Amino acid sequence: MTLNNSNIIITNKFILESDHDFLYHFGIDKKTGNLSEEYGDVKVVCTGGCYKRLENYAKMFAKNSGLLISENKCKTNRYILYKTGPILWISHGIGSPSLSIMLIETIKMLHYANATDVSYIRLGTSGGVGVAPGTVVISSGGINGELKQEHIQYVLGNKVTTPAILDKNLQSELIETAKSLNIPYETGLTLCADDFYEGQGRLDGAFCNYTEKDKFDFLKRIYKLGVRNFEMESTCFASLLNRANIKGAIICVALLNRFNGDQIDMDEETYHEFELRPYKLICQYLKNKFSL
Amino acid sequence: MTLNNSNIIITNKFILESDHDFLYHFGIDKKTGNLSEEYGDVKVVCTGGCYKRLENYAKMFAKNSGLLISENKCKTNRYILYKTGPILWISHGIGSPSLSIMLIETIKMLHYANATDVSYIRLGTSGGVGVAPGTVVISSGGINGELKQEHIQYVLGNKVTTPAILDKNLQSELIETAKSLNIPYETGLTLCADDFYEGQGRLDGAFCNYTEKDKFDFLKRIYKLGVRNFEMESTCFASLLNRANIKGAIICVALLNRFNGDQIDMDEETYHEFELRPYKLICQYLKNKFSL
Repeated sequence: MTLNNSNIIITNKFILESDHDFLYHFGIDKKTGNLSEEYGDVKVVCTGGCYKRLENYAKMFAKNSGLLISENKCKTNRYILYKTGPILWISHGIGSPSLSIMLIETIKMLHYANATDVSYIRLGTSGGVGVAPGTVVISSGGINGELKQEHIQYVLGNKVTTPAILDKNLQSELIETAKSLNIPYETGLTLCADDFYEGQGRLDGAFCNYTEKDKFDFLKRIYKLGVRNFEMESTCFASLLNRANIKGAIICVALLNRFNGDQIDMDEETYHEFELRPYKLICQYLKNKFSL
Repeated sequence: MTLNNSNIIITNKFILESDHDFLYHFGIDKKTGNLSEEYGDVKVVCTGGCYKRLENYAKMFAKNSGLLISENKCKTNRYILYKTGPILWISHGIGSPSLSIMLIETIKMLHYANATDVSYIRLGTSGGVGVAPGTVVISSGGINGELKQEHIQYVLGNKVTTPAILDKNLQSELIETAKSLNIPYETGLTLCADDFYEGQGRLDGAFCNYTEKDKFDFLKRIYKLGVRNFEMESTCFASLLNRANIKGAIICVALLNRFNGDQIDMDEETYHEFELRPYKLICQYLKNKFSL
C-alpha cells in the first residue's frame, strides 16, 4: 500500500490493499501509468452525457482559457477524457448505470493520483418543470423515482439506499456566476429518472398506462416538492460523490417546459444556444476559480 | 392516423393519435422521413453497448454477406445506426436507462415503418458466473437486482414491474448455430445489474461494504438459481420487447469467470478473439436466416 494524501475517500479495503488496479472502461492501469504526475493537480472534473458535447466543451475551454488541451486520454470507446490544466472533461453516457462506472473508475484514478479538493460538475440538458426553455437549473439536490433524496442500488440481492446531497457552497458559487453573466437560472430539486419516457411521465413513448390528467397531477405534485427539472443521473452522481468526500454540482439547461409538452423539437440555432449556456456558466466559473 | 400493418405493438394511444413524432435521440422525424421505404423491410436488429464495436460488426457483416451497408443513419452523437439489407446494427450505450431510450425510439420507428416479424438480438460482453472465459452465454431470461425475472421502473412516483422473458425459439436457433460453429456456449439466466462494481458483487470498486465471503456466498446463490452471467441491460431489454410483441435474444461472451476474480485484464489478442465470438455466431445465424 503506497502513501496517499488524497482527501478523496475510498472505503474499499480490498482495492486499497492491492497494488494492481486496471480501470477497465478507461483502459488505464494503476501500475504502468504515472497517475500522480498525470492527474495529481486535478481540481475540477466537468462531465456530461454526450461524448461529442464534452469534447467540444473541452476544446472551446482550451481556446477560451489559453490552457493546453491533452489528447483524449481514455483508451477505450466507452468514454472520452480530456485535460486542460487542473480541469478534466469526461463524458458519462446516458443514465445512472453508465455514469456510475465513470465515477467509480475516475474516483479511484484521482485517489491514486493523490489529487486533493476535487469537485465534479455535471453539465447537461434536461426537461424543465415549470421553468421556461433555456433556463439553466442549478440543482439543490437529486430525488429518485420514489421521490426521495437517495440513490437506489441492489447489492448482493438487497436494496441499499444512500443520501444524494449536492454541495451548497458550490451551488452558491455557480448561482453568483450565473447572475454575473445574466444567464437565466433557477434552483431546485432534480428528478433522476431511469428512462426518458414513462419514467418522466411523458405521453410520447411507445407505452403509456396513465392519462393526461395523471401526468399533469404528477408534474404539479413534484413542482410543489420543489422539483424544477428531470434528468437521468442526479441521485447516482450526488450519492457516489458524497461517499467519496467529493463536492458535486449539477447545472442542466431546460430544453422545454414539461407543463407545455413532451417533444423536444426546436430549430438548430436555438438548440445550440441553449446547449452552450451550461458551458458559458462553467467557463466563467473556472476562469474566476483559477484566475485565468 | 395512418393505416399500419406492423405487428409491433405500441400501446400508447397519445402517440398513435399524433401525426407528429420526433425521435429526439436519433434525430429522426416521423413526418419528413420516409420510414416505410427506409425501414419497412427490417427483420433483425442487432444491438450492443459500445458504438464502435457495433459499427465494426456492421462493416464486417457487409463484407461477409455481400450486402451493402448504409451510412450511419443516426443523426445525433447518442447512438449509431447502420443498415445492411433487412438487418439494423444499433448501439445502446451502457445500462438499462441508455438502452431504454434506444428501444422506445426504434420500436416506434419500426412500427411507423410498417415492419413485421422483427427480432432484436443483443450482442455483448459480460462477467461469467461459473463459466470459463470465452464462453458465449445464450440467455434464457433476465433477472434483476431483487433476483426476479422482471424489469423495475418508477412511473409517476410508483414502482412498476413488468415480466422480462426472452424468446425460447430464437434461443434454440442460436444454440443450434453455436453448435454448428463449435463456439463454446452455455445457456442460463443473466443478472441485470445497475452498476459494474457493487451491483455485481465485485471487490475492486471504490466502495465495498461486504466481505469476500459475502461475495462468494452470493455468487454461489445465483449460480444455484441458474445465473450464468452478469451484464447491465437484460431485464429492460426483455421487458420492453415483450410489451411490443417483439422477439428478443441476448448473447454475451463471458470475459472472465467471477468465481476466479473481478478484474478484466487480458492480452489484446485474446480480448479481440472473445469479443468476436458473439459476432461470429450472429453472422452465421443471419446468413442461414436470409440465405446469404
